[in-house]
Amino acid sequence: MARVYNFNAGPAALPQVVLEQVRDELLDWHGSGMSVMEMSHRGKEFMAIAAQAEQDLRELLAIPENYKVLFLQGGATTQFAMVPLNLMGEGRRADYIHTGAWSKKAISEAKKFGAVNIAASGEESGFAAIPPQSAWRLDSEAAYVHYTPNETIGGVEFHWIPETGGVPLVGDFSSTLLSRPVDVSRFGLIYAGAQKNVGPAGVTLVIVREDLVGHALPGTPTILDYAPQVENDSMYNTPATFSWYVAGLVFAHLKAQGGLAAMAEINQRKAKLLYRTIDESGFYRNPVAIADRSWMNVPFILPDAALDATFLSEAKAAGLLGLKGHRSVGGMRASIYNAVSYEAVETLVAFMKDFQQRHG
Amino acid sequence: MARVYNFNAGPAALPQVVLEQVRDELLDWHGSGMSVMEMSHRGKEFMAIAAQAEQDLRELLAIPENYKVLFLQGGATTQFAMVPLNLMGEGRRADYIHTGAWSKKAISEAKKFGAVNIAASGEESGFAAIPPQSAWRLDSEAAYVHYTPNETIGGVEFHWIPETGGVPLVGDFSSTLLSRPVDVSRFGLIYAGAQKNVGPAGVTLVIVREDLVGHALPGTPTILDYAPQVENDSMYNTPATFSWYVAGLVFAHLKAQGGLAAMAEINQRKAKLLYRTIDESGFYRNPVAIADRSWMNVPFILPDAALDATFLSEAKAAGLLGLKGHRSVGGMRASIYNAVSYEAVETLVAFMKDFQQRHG
Repeated sequence: MARVYNFNAGPAALPQVVLEQVRDELLDWHGSGMSVMEMSHRGKEFMAIAAQAEQDLRELLAIPENYKVLFLQGGATTQFAMVPLNLMGEGRRADYIHTGAWSKKAISEAKKFGAVNIAASGEESGFAAIPPQSAWRLDSEAAYVHYTPNETIGGVEFHWIPETGGVPLVGDFSSTLLSRPVDVSRFGLIYAGAQKNVGPAGVTLVIVREDLVGHALPGTPTILDYAPQVENDSMYNTPATFSWYVAGLVFAHLKAQGGLAAMAEINQRKAKLLYRTIDESGFYRNPVAIADRSWMNVPFILPDAALDATFLSEAKAAGLLGLKGHRSVGGMRASIYNAVSYEAVETLVAFMKDFQQRHG
Repeated sequence: MARVYNFNAGPAALPQVVLEQVRDELLDWHGSGMSVMEMSHRGKEFMAIAAQAEQDLRELLAIPENYKVLFLQGGATTQFAMVPLNLMGEGRRADYIHTGAWSKKAISEAKKFGAVNIAASGEESGFAAIPPQSAWRLDSEAAYVHYTPNETIGGVEFHWIPETGGVPLVGDFSSTLLSRPVDVSRFGLIYAGAQKNVGPAGVTLVIVREDLVGHALPGTPTILDYAPQVENDSMYNTPATFSWYVAGLVFAHLKAQGGLAAMAEINQRKAKLLYRTIDESGFYRNPVAIADRSWMNVPFILPDAALDATFLSEAKAAGLLGLKGHRSVGGMRASIYNAVSYEAVETLVAFMKDFQQRHG
């Protein structure tokens, strides 16, 4: 079978040229006589791979020097615990913004470690809109403000960065990091599971302002403390070397494509094309407030849920995969991360129009 | 360059046929039109890969039905915290056997969560021997007994399973799992980072008797609780899918090679050849008590540390890599895991003899 158009929400599509490079050097990386999977993480070959990946990521995101970059394991779900354990401090108070399924999980975990103030919630709108900053009730004594810039399931995205005064801002960028430029200096900490725009599942990026490291709560398991990982360049224990390497190839690829400004331009075009098709169809429907629609995850529902199975099977026959909506929402969802091309979205849109004609 | 002989301690050599299969299906797994890295962990393709891997592992180790198998992230170092957090219970007491660098780390982490009784220690012998069970002072009130069946750095290995009465036995099998059969029914819990005999770094195996799950201490971060992972078949959050897949290919390969009895036979032959060469040389020296020598990690020292650099550079020129001893021990170390062939050890031994002739 030829390569399909892959709209999976995560793990998700990777750039084909990256996969080809992985394949070509799988048994022998750059004449080393071994696979990257077989290299000691402390050997000079892997140290070079690791350092290059960090350097390229720093360049892509223009990460200031007073921020550390970590390549950890455990996904965003592990960060749901690490953030409060490391940042809450003695006061044990934090603000959380509730915008959907993923912020809800972050909130639930943080409550294990301290007092969580829900400073704003999108619940009234059924999480179809981001609560405007004017309505937020931030706690000036909070150790940090946590939010979810992109809700992978609900398909709402912040197209602005919250203003938190002097309180460190923490963002779960799992499904939007590298899709556009972001001003890292506005943040205390950014984290992202890799399996959307970054690389294969198994590596988690953490970008943390260095003054926030070293204050873990008493009793924090060492593996959940940022400090030893910072001290050991993410090698306090053996890292997920192969995933780190593939992420590095993705970074190099993004640089060659023109960096994050170029990605933002194409990602916005992809999203516009898909939302316009939905809105103009009178058939498909996206429930999210126009200003808060995600560039990355586009949920849409058909007029009759009885059509869902037909849509999915016909889409699959047309080489369009991963379109089933999250089980908590139903309907369809197209995740259109960096590695999903404009052509893939055009093909999807053409299919959607054709499907509507035949079933509308 | 041709493939080298890879004696890395971990991440370490993988079977070449496994790497070839990974390469061949990297862009299109079984006609799915996508890489395993790009598959949803909840899609039927990956669910099949995951289930097959578990089934093959269960078969290889003859895992009884009342044991759960988990594919987690975070390495053995994460288990250093998870074991006490999940198993210590209200009594918060556990026995640990101290046999070297890795058991020391496990002990240090466990002390964060309760009272640790060092029931036996190899310190008197400089960790060159396993303390005999007759000298152990086990605490009958301990929640579990933890030991390290193989010390990767020191090169000592238990060739027997401790007797703990009714107290659950916990083993860090990171560097020996799958190298020989093991009677899982003797254990409460077995864990192993993958990057020795199992697969690429980034996946960690946990085999746990089901009655030991569900008793995590209050305040345990959810991601460090076995229960939600058991309930969700290791998919409480997105697992390290690609590493899981490669581990599955290794399991299938081991089955095709005759399973763990066959591996034990060849591993013992490899170890015997290498130790005999060392002992008979009058030049190289291995400090470990003969009865406790590891089949997996063979440290050896040269008569003069000034020769170390020459040994390593000449070995490298001969295609023998990864022989530098751990920085805490010095000298050399040959890790001869499953994927290191008998021929590789023969080649090493021939090189060692030749080196001795020229420098002895």
